[in-house]
Amino acid sequence: MYETRKMTQFQKAQNNEITEEMKYVAKQECVDVNTLMRDIAQGLVVIPANTNHGNLKPIGIGYGLKTKVNANIGTSPIKSDLETELRKLDIAIKSRVDTIMDLSLGGNLNEIRRRVIGTSVIPVGTVPIYQAVIEAGNPEDLTLDRYLEVFERHARDGVDFATVHAGITLEVLPQLEKRVMPIVSRGGTFLARWMKKHNKQSFLYDGFDEILDLARKYDVTMSLGDGLRPGCLKDATDEAQINELKILGKLAEKCRNRGVQVMIEGPGHIPLNQIEKNVRLEKEYCKNAPFYVLGPLPTDIAAGYDHIACAIGGALAGMYGADFLCYVTPKEHVSLPDMQDVREGIIVTRIAAHIADIAKGRNLSIQQDYIMSEARSRLDWDIMADYALDPENFRRLIKEECVNNQDISQGCSMCGKYCTEKINKAY
Amino acid sequence: MYETRKMTQFQKAQNNEITEEMKYVAKQECVDVNTLMRDIAQGLVVIPANTNHGNLKPIGIGYGLKTKVNANIGTSPIKSDLETELRKLDIAIKSRVDTIMDLSLGGNLNEIRRRVIGTSVIPVGTVPIYQAVIEAGNPEDLTLDRYLEVFERHARDGVDFATVHAGITLEVLPQLEKRVMPIVSRGGTFLARWMKKHNKQSFLYDGFDEILDLARKYDVTMSLGDGLRPGCLKDATDEAQINELKILGKLAEKCRNRGVQVMIEGPGHIPLNQIEKNVRLEKEYCKNAPFYVLGPLPTDIAAGYDHIACAIGGALAGMYGADFLCYVTPKEHVSLPDMQDVREGIIVTRIAAHIADIAKGRNLSIQQDYIMSEARSRLDWDIMADYALDPENFRRLIKEECVNNQDISQGCSMCGKYCTEKINKAY
Repeated sequence: MYETRKMTQFQKAQNNEITEEMKYVAKQECVDVNTLMRDIAQGLVVIPANTNHGNLKPIGIGYGLKTKVNANIGTSPIKSDLETELRKLDIAIKSRVDTIMDLSLGGNLNEIRRRVIGTSVIPVGTVPIYQAVIEAGNPEDLTLDRYLEVFERHARDGVDFATVHAGITLEVLPQLEKRVMPIVSRGGTFLARWMKKHNKQSFLYDGFDEILDLARKYDVTMSLGDGLRPGCLKDATDEAQINELKILGKLAEKCRNRGVQVMIEGPGHIPLNQIEKNVRLEKEYCKNAPFYVLGPLPTDIAAGYDHIACAIGGALAGMYGADFLCYVTPKEHVSLPDMQDVREGIIVTRIAAHIADIAKGRNLSIQQDYIMSEARSRLDWDIMADYALDPENFRRLIKEECVNNQDISQGCSMCGKYCTEKINKAY
Repeated sequence: MYETRKMTQFQKAQNNEITEEMKYVAKQECVDVNTLMRDIAQGLVVIPANTNHGNLKPIGIGYGLKTKVNANIGTSPIKSDLETELRKLDIAIKSRVDTIMDLSLGGNLNEIRRRVIGTSVIPVGTVPIYQAVIEAGNPEDLTLDRYLEVFERHARDGVDFATVHAGITLEVLPQLEKRVMPIVSRGGTFLARWMKKHNKQSFLYDGFDEILDLARKYDVTMSLGDGLRPGCLKDATDEAQINELKILGKLAEKCRNRGVQVMIEGPGHIPLNQIEKNVRLEKEYCKNAPFYVLGPLPTDIAAGYDHIACAIGGALAGMYGADFLCYVTPKEHVSLPDMQDVREGIIVTRIAAHIADIAKGRNLSIQQDYIMSEARSRLDWDIMADYALDPENFRRLIKEECVNNQDISQGCSMCGKYCTEKINKAY
């Protein structure tokens, strides 16, 4: 047996123990805490809450809960400024994102991560293999020990969830030759290079149990990365992708057997008519582990607007059961996002998540739309602003409109005296 | 028998006659012209091409063709400036919209319409009842004769398709009492007021055959308006909406019987999980007449971003078979759109249409993504720009990126030396 304080949310739930984090999440979501606990015990819900992340307001991700939104921030080898990243974090939280991932590749990685976690009241995720490669100099020189050391550094610092690309294995590499874009996951490319060089099974796959021991120690939620997510529609839902998903399902089972919380990362570039299948396969192969999707992006040609294309894919994935949407920004495929891009990416992904929640039948989401519409039918602009998805932007638009239109209470400049709400009222 | 030159595209198709318009559309769409002709003859496809619209480049709307996008422009009683509307038209065409609707409510309506049609090489639609009400002074004073006179003025001017709200009937009005927002269609509210005042069946419904005679004379495509489209999710797919759709199905049959081309307008505010049902019902009740949807808008709270919410709904509707997407702008529910709003609305709706076309299996659309992805895998930014959905914006983003990143050909500032495409190539 583990000491209680060292048990994960998953272990405690299996022990029928209701934690402070579960109480907090249940209250936020207006769900019954016993139901929540049972869903965590079954692996349907995770609460990524590292025992070392002091100032955290925990959230739940998974079945029966609000669809969550993640924003990626972080430096790159070309653009690296800590203060910019902290401002992105601030904007992200003000834009009501649910989680942050620090994907930094440049600058002092330890300092950036510690400042992000120290500042962030929302859960923080990382991809430890990035730092492991950077410190090793190149992917071929990685070893399991080096990786574990970096992973533990992240865990000790309070990282709430970590992407681990343990599903890309030696056996799958030949299947990638058929692809237009063999690998577009950065972690995936690092592992593929390592395996090709050493002609050995991936050290993440072989060393998975040791990673789990560290994850359990700090209650880091494992986010099993899809190193083989398709990078274009032509490669979508292919043999390599599905084989990796099956392996992720087996690794998820290992996580649960070791008392570690787990979620599954998903594609990627997927045509709209294959999204339902992708969600259903994840739920089937991974026993309903929470599904964390990047997009999906249902076209390859929307560069400059990939955040919108991803919102389309994300809403549909959410409706079919995806639990957690990773945002994409207008700069995807072109450059590192700036602060305005972060805000735009979050807003459109929140729209997608909200649309999915309504389709999932979530009462709180449905109610918000109902109150908005009642206010709209009365032309009550103040209440509309309160219930709008982005109240700040809505108030700005009303203010502009009031300058151009003396009496917005009588209808906006779209219809003026022909406002249908006014004509409706005249009955 | 009609004189050949006075026959509609539908009548000619039924006569096994291939028109210049059919040849042009078949070439644009890379489809077989005989198949296109048969689809027109069955009412699956329309070519809105008024015989008086001289400078028109015709398009086809319906089964087997690219999903089309419409942009609404036009003055309002509060903002009315012809030059602004002509600039919106110019921006809309440059943004590669497929059709325009002039929904003007203010200023010299005849002049605006004539200038828009004279300038526009793409099909133009109108809603004649707006002008009929404005000229009558109020909806109660409308008569069928007044309406027919305005309709013919529009037809004579070269309007290619016209919205006619003939499906809202006296019998359905009591069903609206259950709604949060009884009617949000402007044409619908006009007709409801008229029917309530006179306690008589709608003059559009009763006089439908006379309208059809005018439509046939100029080959105006009838766009049967959904006066009862839901204005909020709570009212979606209700009795009133479905009853109106059934009536539209019967009116569509009347159109075909009189040799008139017809499409059906659709909702409106619809939760994401009801969109498939809405499309399937339209196809069933209206014998696969082309479906022209406004959105659908799968949330009520996204004011300021309704164009994006509509793109989400529109992509899904398109995947299930909607043929024609009406854009919504960022100003929907708040004010009349400006020029930038028109552009943004069109771009996001084109993204939705393209995503739908891929999901529908349209080869030309799939090929575009394939070429884009091949270029991306080679980091060939020029070819990527050529195949991007919005090449102008993509080139602007690349230019910005080149200022901040000395050598974009080696990867963008997102990943720098860790660019997966470079690592892939290093195999």
